[in-house]
Amino acid sequence: MIIHLNKDATEIEINSIYTVLKEIKYKPSLVDTRNEKYIVCIGTAEFDIRAIGNMPGVSDTYRVSDSYKLVSKKWKLKYSSIDLGNETQIGAGELSIMAGPCSIENEEQVTKIVDHLVANNVKIMRGGVYKPRSSPYSFRGMGLEGLAMFYDIAHKAGIKIISEVMDVSQIKSMYPYVDIFQVGTRNSQNFNLLDELGQIDKPVLLKRAMNGTIEELLHSAEYIFSKGNEELMLCERGIRTYETAYRNTFDINAIALLKEKTHLPVIADPSHGIGIRAHVPAIALAAVAAGADGIIYEVHEKPEEAASDGYQTLNFDESVKLIKRVRVLSESLN
Amino acid sequence: MIIHLNKDATEIEINSIYTVLKEIKYKPSLVDTRNEKYIVCIGTAEFDIRAIGNMPGVSDTYRVSDSYKLVSKKWKLKYSSIDLGNETQIGAGELSIMAGPCSIENEEQVTKIVDHLVANNVKIMRGGVYKPRSSPYSFRGMGLEGLAMFYDIAHKAGIKIISEVMDVSQIKSMYPYVDIFQVGTRNSQNFNLLDELGQIDKPVLLKRAMNGTIEELLHSAEYIFSKGNEELMLCERGIRTYETAYRNTFDINAIALLKEKTHLPVIADPSHGIGIRAHVPAIALAAVAAGADGIIYEVHEKPEEAASDGYQTLNFDESVKLIKRVRVLSESLN
Amino acid sequence: MIIHLNKDATEIEINSIYTVLKEIKYKPSLVDTRNEKYIVCIGTAEFDIRAIGNMPGVSDTYRVSDSYKLVSKKWKLKYSSIDLGNETQIGAGELSIMAGPCSIENEEQVTKIVDHLVANNVKIMRGGVYKPRSSPYSFRGMGLEGLAMFYDIAHKAGIKIISEVMDVSQIKSMYPYVDIFQVGTRNSQNFNLLDELGQIDKPVLLKRAMNGTIEELLHSAEYIFSKGNEELMLCERGIRTYETAYRNTFDINAIALLKEKTHLPVIADPSHGIGIRAHVPAIALAAVAAGADGIIYEVHEKPEEAASDGYQTLNFDESVKLIKRVRVLSESLN
Amino acid sequence: MIIHLNKDATEIEINSIYTVLKEIKYKPSLVDTRNEKYIVCIGTAEFDIRAIGNMPGVSDTYRVSDSYKLVSKKWKLKYSSIDLGNETQIGAGELSIMAGPCSIENEEQVTKIVDHLVANNVKIMRGGVYKPRSSPYSFRGMGLEGLAMFYDIAHKAGIKIISEVMDVSQIKSMYPYVDIFQVGTRNSQNFNLLDELGQIDKPVLLKRAMNGTIEELLHSAEYIFSKGNEELMLCERGIRTYETAYRNTFDINAIALLKEKTHLPVIADPSHGIGIRAHVPAIALAAVAAGADGIIYEVHEKPEEAASDGYQTLNFDESVKLIKRVRVLSESLN
Repeated sequence: MIIHLNKDATEIEINSIYTVLKEIKYKPSLVDTRNEKYIVCIGTAEFDIRAIGNMPGVSDTYRVSDSYKLVSKKWKLKYSSIDLGNETQIGAGELSIMAGPCSIENEEQVTKIVDHLVANNVKIMRGGVYKPRSSPYSFRGMGLEGLAMFYDIAHKAGIKIISEVMDVSQIKSMYPYVDIFQVGTRNSQNFNLLDELGQIDKPVLLKRAMNGTIEELLHSAEYIFSKGNEELMLCERGIRTYETAYRNTFDINAIALLKEKTHLPVIADPSHGIGIRAHVPAIALAAVAAGADGIIYEVHEKPEEAASDGYQTLNFDESVKLIKRVRVLSESLN
Repeated sequence: MIIHLNKDATEIEINSIYTVLKEIKYKPSLVDTRNEKYIVCIGTAEFDIRAIGNMPGVSDTYRVSDSYKLVSKKWKLKYSSIDLGNETQIGAGELSIMAGPCSIENEEQVTKIVDHLVANNVKIMRGGVYKPRSSPYSFRGMGLEGLAMFYDIAHKAGIKIISEVMDVSQIKSMYPYVDIFQVGTRNSQNFNLLDELGQIDKPVLLKRAMNGTIEELLHSAEYIFSKGNEELMLCERGIRTYETAYRNTFDINAIALLKEKTHLPVIADPSHGIGIRAHVPAIALAAVAAGADGIIYEVHEKPEEAASDGYQTLNFDESVKLIKRVRVLSESLN
Repeated sequence: MIIHLNKDATEIEINSIYTVLKEIKYKPSLVDTRNEKYIVCIGTAEFDIRAIGNMPGVSDTYRVSDSYKLVSKKWKLKYSSIDLGNETQIGAGELSIMAGPCSIENEEQVTKIVDHLVANNVKIMRGGVYKPRSSPYSFRGMGLEGLAMFYDIAHKAGIKIISEVMDVSQIKSMYPYVDIFQVGTRNSQNFNLLDELGQIDKPVLLKRAMNGTIEELLHSAEYIFSKGNEELMLCERGIRTYETAYRNTFDINAIALLKEKTHLPVIADPSHGIGIRAHVPAIALAAVAAGADGIIYEVHEKPEEAASDGYQTLNFDESVKLIKRVRVLSESLN
Repeated sequence: MIIHLNKDATEIEINSIYTVLKEIKYKPSLVDTRNEKYIVCIGTAEFDIRAIGNMPGVSDTYRVSDSYKLVSKKWKLKYSSIDLGNETQIGAGELSIMAGPCSIENEEQVTKIVDHLVANNVKIMRGGVYKPRSSPYSFRGMGLEGLAMFYDIAHKAGIKIISEVMDVSQIKSMYPYVDIFQVGTRNSQNFNLLDELGQIDKPVLLKRAMNGTIEELLHSAEYIFSKGNEELMLCERGIRTYETAYRNTFDINAIALLKEKTHLPVIADPSHGIGIRAHVPAIALAAVAAGADGIIYEVHEKPEEAASDGYQTLNFDESVKLIKRVRVLSESLN
C-alpha cells in the first residue's frame, strides 16, 4: 500500500498513521521527495483501506500488489516526466534523443559533437569520463577534469549532459557538472550507489543489468525513488543471451512491458543493444515503435578513431539520418 | 563459391566444370531449383575464379565467404520474393500479414476468422492441425481432415494458408491442402524434414529454433535451398533467455541482422515472440520498423475460449487495430 | 493418476474402469508396455481414489501431481533399470560406461576402439552413422552400411552398441543393428519420432534439447513411455548459455534434480557437456559424484584425425585413466 | 609480459626497465604486493624478452598471451595458496570448507553454528551483515555491530570468518572484524571496490557475476591483484540460464576451466549454485570431483526459521553428512 500524504502533513498526523499501521502489522517507510510525501507500507493483513484514507494528513491511498511500489503503474496511472529546464521534457509524449561519444576524449571532440547536436536540435549529450572497463590496464576515462570541460562546452551551446557515475564517492564531485546521472549496467544492483542517488536532486537514468530481470530493474528504481528522488528513468540496453552474432541482444519486449508496469520514462540504448554500427538505426526505430520514450546512442566524428566502442558508434551522417527517421516514425505513431 | 549455370547447361558442360573443381579440390553440389541451376562448391584452395566464369554453361560465379552459400546475400544482392498467386507477394517491398488461430478447431471458427481477414484485406491465414505439444496427453490438433476443411474455406474466400508440418511422413498428404509449409521451432534443425521440403514446389516458412543462432537458421535454410526449393522465408519467433516475464524474448536484432545476411524474406512472429496478448502489437510494430517483410500472429474470435495459446491471441478488434497501425507504420518507413 | 493394472486385466474390467473415469471426467490413456499395463488419467476433479483401487483388474493406484506421469518418481519409488543382456545393467546401482567415436568411419577404426573397450571391460560402445550437421555440405555419416559393420564387429566382441536415429523412416532399417537407440539433442522434441520409439522393444537414450528444460525432457520421455516403451534413459549433454568459453555448459544441477524427479536412469555426456578434451574427465567425475548412473563419452585412437568432434574426444590413454578414476570415485561414494 | 622483479629492485633499476619498455611501446604497471614486485607490460611489439630478463633488478620474465596477466596460470605454474594462520590453508591441496548462515541474526544463532563447526573441525565461517537485497524494503543485515559480535564469538572458538563487503565506504570499518572479504555476485564488476580491495592486506573471495564470463571473472581478479593484493580466491556460485527449475545453474565447467586458466584457488558455492536444499550436497560433491579447492555453503540450526535463504540452507545433520562425504570424496581423488 502507498499512502500519499498531503504536502503539509504534520508529524502528529504521520504518527497517528504509524500507530494504525503498527496495529495491522504493516512496516512503513516514509518517502520525502522534492515534490511529494508518501508512506510505503509492506504487509499482508487484510484491512479496510478507507479507514486510512480518511485520516488527517492523507491525500490518497493505493493498494499496489507489485513487490515494487512507488515506481509501479498500479497507483500512478499517468506517466511521469522529467523537466530538464531547457525546454526539454523526458517522457510526457516527447521523443527524447540523447547522443554522444562513448568516452569524452578532448575539447575538439566534444565541440564537434556539440555542433552536430545543435544542428539537429538534439538537446541532451551523453559522454563517459569514468569508464567501467573489464581490464584494469585499459583507459578508464578522463575523470572529473574531462567532465567539467564536457559540461562547459555543452552548456554554452544549450545542451544538457548525461554521464555515468560508478561509485558513491564520485557523486559529490560530479554533481556540479552533470544534468543526469547515469547508472551503468554493471552497477544496476549496486544498492549503496542507488541509495545515495536517491538523495540528490538531479535526474537519474538507470540501466538494466546485462543479466537483470524486469522485476530487478524496477526494484532498483524503487531504491532510488524510495530514498526521495522521483526524477528517474529506465534504460534497456540489451541482455546477455547465447547468441554471439551481436554483442548483446536488445530486449524489445522489455520496452513494451515496462510501459505497462511503470509510470517512469523508458529509454532505449540501441548502440549497446546490438553493438553493430550498421544496425543501430534499425534497433532505435524498433524501440520507438514499441513505445520507448527516447533513445540514447553513440555518435562520433570518426568512429574508427574513437577511444572506445567505435564499432557501435555512428558518424555524423548516419546520426543525421537516424534522427530524421526516428522523428518521422514517432510522428506517424501519434 | 557458387557457380550459377545457364538454364540449358548440358551434362557435358557440367562434367567439364566438375573436372576443374576436382583439380582444385572443391567439393561440388549440383542444385536444381524450379527456376535455376547452381553448383555450390566447398573448398579452400586459391584459384582464378575467372577461369571458371569463362567456361561453357556458366552464367556467373560468386565467391561467398559465409559458410552458408545459396541463402547468403553476398552473391544475390537483390532481395528474393515469393509469388503466392493471389496477387500476393512475400518480400519485394510488400508488407505481408499472416494471421489466424493457433489451432484449427472447427468450421465455424475458421469461417469467422476468414471473414475477419477478408474484411481487412489480409491474404494469408495461419492455423495448425498438427500441434507440437510438450505433453503427450494434450490435444494434438485436428490432423489432415481439419487441414482440408481449413483449406477449402480459406480458398473459397481467396485466402492462402500456411500450416505446420512436423514430420517427413506428413508432407505428401498435406501437400494438396497447404500453400505454405511451416517448419516449427522444434524442427528447425530436423535435417531430414528440411531435406524433404527442399524437394517440393511449395513455399516454406522456416522458424528459428528457440535456442537457435542466426547462423544455424541460415544453415537450415541452406538445407532446403540446396535441395532445390528457393521459395523460402525465415521467421524470428523469440528465443529463450533467463527472463521469465515473457514466454520468449523476441530477438529484434535478428530481424536487422538477417536482412543483412540473407536475401530471403524475413517474417516476425510477435505472438510467440512475447507471449502476452496485450503486447503483441508493440512487438509487431517494432519488427516492421526494424525491417521485417511481414508478420504472422494469432487471432481468434474469442481468445479466452481458444483451444490453445489464448493468452497470446488477439481478438478481432485488436487485430483490426494492429493491421491498421502496422500498415501506417510501414508506409511511413518508405 | 496412474492406475496400474493387473497383467491379465480383461477388457471388461478395463471398460468398467473407463466408465468410472468418464463419470469423474478424467481422460484415460491405456499404456501397454512389454511388462506392464497402466491407465494414465488426466483430470482435475476430487474423488476417492480407493474406490478405483478396489475395482477388479486394478493392481494399484497412484496420485501423481507432476504433469508428466509414468516417468515420475512420485509413483515409482524404486529406480528403474535396463537389462542389456550381456551381464550389463543400466541403472540399478551400476556405473554404466559408454564410449566410442563421434562418427563411425571404417572397420579399422571400429576394431581398435572395440579392442580398447574390451581391454577396459567397457560393455557399451557409441558411434554415429547418421550425423546431424548444421551445414548440408558436411559429411553426414556412413549410414546403414556403416551401422551393420559397427554392429557386427562390436557384437563379436561382446559389446552392445548405441547409435543415433534422426528420423522415423530410419527406425525400421536400423532396428536389427542397434541395441540402444539414441535420440539426439536436436530431436528431443521431435514428437513423431518419440511416438514411434515408444512402440519398439529396444532401449532408448533420450538427450536433453540444448535449450530444453528439465520438465520438457521429462515430458519427452513420457511420450516414449506412454506409447509402451519402458526401457528408457535420460541424458544431460550440456545446455546453451551466454558463456562462450566452452561449447556447452554442462548442467550438473540437472543430474541432481532428475534423480529426484524420475525413476529413469540418468546418463551424463561430458564430451558435449564441455566440448574441451582436457576437461572431459573432470566433468565425468563431477557427474558421477552428483549421482549420474553412467557416462557416455567420445574416444578415438587419434582424436586429431577423427572425422568429427576431435576437439572433445579422448585418446586411449586418456580414456583408460578416466575409466579408472571414475570407477574409483563411484566405489568411494557407496 | 610480466617482469618479476627482485624484492630489493631499486628505483634506478626499475627506471631503466621503464626506458626499455618505452622503446618497445609497452605500457608498464608496477605492482607491489605484500610479497613480490612485478611490472605488468601491455603491448604488441615483437622483441627479445631475454634482453629484459638479463637487466639488473629482474628476477624473471614471462610472456602471457592471456589478456589477464598476474592471475594467469601461464606464468605461475604452481597453484597459489592462502595462509589464514589458524593452521588453515586455502589451496595447496587442502579441501577448504566454509559454512555458516546467509545472514548473521543474533548471538545465539552464531554460537550454535560456531559449535557445529568446531565439532566438525571446520575452520572458516561465513555470514553476512550487509545483505544485497533486490527490494529496498527487505532486511538488509545487522551491519557493523553484528559483524563485531560474529567476529568475537568465532575467534574465541578459533574460527576465521568471511563476510561480504558491498561498498568502498565499508572496507575500513569492517577491516578489524573480517578475515576474508567476500565480493558478492552483484559487485563482481564493481571496479572501484575491486581497486580498493587490492590495497588491503587481507584475503578476498571474489564471486563470479551471475552473468559473468570466465574471462570477466579473471579480469576482475586482475584488478585486485594488480593493485597489490595476491591473497585472492575465486568463487563459482551459479549463473543465470533459461532453466527455471533451480534458482541458478551451477557451472561445473567453470571449476575445471578455472583450474587450467589461473593459479588462484577456486571455491564452489553449491547453496546459491542450485538453490535447493536437498541438492546442495550433490553439487558440493560434484564441484570437489571437478577440482574445486573448497566449498562455501549455508548452514543454520533451523533453516525454516532463518532470516533469509532458508530454502537453500542445510541443517546441522545435513551439514555433518555433507562434511563427511566431501572429505571422503576428496581423499579418494588423491
